[in-house]
Amino acid sequence: MGSSKQNSISAKPRFAVESYIEGILKKDRVMLSRAITLAESNLSTDRLLAEELIQGILPYTGNSIRIGITGIPGVGKSTFIESFGKYLTSINKKVAVLAVDPSSQLTKGSILGDKTRMEELSKDENAFIRPTSAGIALGGVANNTREAILLCEAAGFDVIIVETVGVGQSEAQVRSMVDFFLLLLLGGAGDELQGIKKGIMEMADAVVITKADGENLKKAKQAQADFQHALHLFRAAESGWIPKVLISSALEKTGIHEVWSLIDSYQDQMISKGYFHSQRLGQNIDWFHSSIEGRIKQEIMNSKSMQKKIKETEKKILSGSINPGTAARDVVQAFIQSLSLN
Amino acid sequence: MGSSKQNSISAKPRFAVESYIEGILKKDRVMLSRAITLAESNLSTDRLLAEELIQGILPYTGNSIRIGITGIPGVGKSTFIESFGKYLTSINKKVAVLAVDPSSQLTKGSILGDKTRMEELSKDENAFIRPTSAGIALGGVANNTREAILLCEAAGFDVIIVETVGVGQSEAQVRSMVDFFLLLLLGGAGDELQGIKKGIMEMADAVVITKADGENLKKAKQAQADFQHALHLFRAAESGWIPKVLISSALEKTGIHEVWSLIDSYQDQMISKGYFHSQRLGQNIDWFHSSIEGRIKQEIMNSKSMQKKIKETEKKILSGSINPGTAARDVVQAFIQSLSLN
Repeated sequence: MGSSKQNSISAKPRFAVESYIEGILKKDRVMLSRAITLAESNLSTDRLLAEELIQGILPYTGNSIRIGITGIPGVGKSTFIESFGKYLTSINKKVAVLAVDPSSQLTKGSILGDKTRMEELSKDENAFIRPTSAGIALGGVANNTREAILLCEAAGFDVIIVETVGVGQSEAQVRSMVDFFLLLLLGGAGDELQGIKKGIMEMADAVVITKADGENLKKAKQAQADFQHALHLFRAAESGWIPKVLISSALEKTGIHEVWSLIDSYQDQMISKGYFHSQRLGQNIDWFHSSIEGRIKQEIMNSKSMQKKIKETEKKILSGSINPGTAARDVVQAFIQSLSLN
Repeated sequence: MGSSKQNSISAKPRFAVESYIEGILKKDRVMLSRAITLAESNLSTDRLLAEELIQGILPYTGNSIRIGITGIPGVGKSTFIESFGKYLTSINKKVAVLAVDPSSQLTKGSILGDKTRMEELSKDENAFIRPTSAGIALGGVANNTREAILLCEAAGFDVIIVETVGVGQSEAQVRSMVDFFLLLLLGGAGDELQGIKKGIMEMADAVVITKADGENLKKAKQAQADFQHALHLFRAAESGWIPKVLISSALEKTGIHEVWSLIDSYQDQMISKGYFHSQRLGQNIDWFHSSIEGRIKQEIMNSKSMQKKIKETEKKILSGSINPGTAARDVVQAFIQSLSLN
């Protein structure tokens, strides 16, 4: 283990693990960025280095509140996060915003420049904004983001916001890595659209009705009442927490303080109940299980003989002589046999 | 291989693989249903039997058009599929509707009874409606549905409709298993909501604006023009196909025939270009790769010594002494070593 020298295989220069750790603990943002990039790499040498790094910073992690924020495009997510983030830095919190976009796994498309999305926040020296590059990340974009959370915590960020981006594929993933899950909704967007939110609403610890200003205010208040009622109906959370519905206007800067107060009181209650800690532990176990698959696939992909077997098997599939499921079994059997013969 | 006897480990009685194949080829729906249930099972004995079955019916598969249909709840998806399905059976097509709901992996919630959702179609003797149970399916709900498609094809269904259900996590998965991907949209639902559709729109071969009747008709026609314009802008598909936008009313039964005509002409064009076949082959390769992970995870889970190792490692994670990623690597290394020692 331990590639403590610069790694010539990597596309970008790497540092010794100690340099990353030192830089991060010194709150060096360039080093933090590079560490996140390292953790996103699929190169096996990078993975080893990243794991050493994560293991090394582990004692310095955990001291943040991790907040997931979701909502359909058009709900004003970036605007809300910008206002919320600015509020937090104004009360001396250090805020990291991580954006998760699993959809780009398919389309290879990238998130619109995050800097332009949250212009003011990105200039704030107590804020750090970073999209998670998707690619074909080992263990999925979720594990990359989990590692990014830990790295940000070690770098001293008090509030980690994990934002879902894209076509709604990421809510469950984000829910599995945060302490508090916030759903942004529009008031008066019509009953027709409530359905899509149901599955997501079940995950929410709070709902914020955005754009609650001017002519929208009345609609927003009505939506607040409706959703509060709905949330009472279908949630009897393990934590005992009853999700709250708030309204906010980024334009008039209203409701932002209330959102933070709510999250703060959630954290207090959940810590005293022991739920805060137990939820995190459960999330770590989920992370562990989802990582096992990724790691073993990497083992297969790193083996030259298996690469050859996979290519041969692909030909059989293309000729139609074998179905993909059985073909996968054959490859796995061959892998196991190759190990047994070593 | 080959558990040709009833399998006493299974929760439900299993048949010999020949019985399943015979039943399916005879178009016996009860047997088809049971075969799909078998293919959804995670028991390793069931998996072996299911793979034998899939391999056995393979020569009888492929003779359908596979259509993915998505759209937010409220768009009238069930109503559209019911009308579309009834139209297809009226022109002597046999139609299978498979519903994919990955969200229930998390919530363990199940789809609203599909029978009530499509009441008329479910009574049609040339239609077959079946939700894919999610559970913690091996290789994910996607592979279950892929196998269900093959089973329905062997049972003589001409049109397989794969419907996405839930909170929008499944579009990319469904796109990866169908020939034609149809997106249902509402006219006049507001620009605010167009964002969510962008990632999905890139996958669409056609868009249908639903509820194009009465007062909505004008809005629907406007939306048709707008979306047609938008689709021209961002799609230069590998297939050379330019996605079309149609309007339909389930209430007035309009536009249904046009949707089928479009799909029919798509199929003709793509077959003559060779794209139809090459897309399916590419999808099989994807299926193969996504199956490898699931199979190897099963190997680990079936090993008693590994189960023990996993339990021990979970304790270390809970004590905070190791991070989940490194823990996963340790487990995989132990697995590989255990094989090498055999």
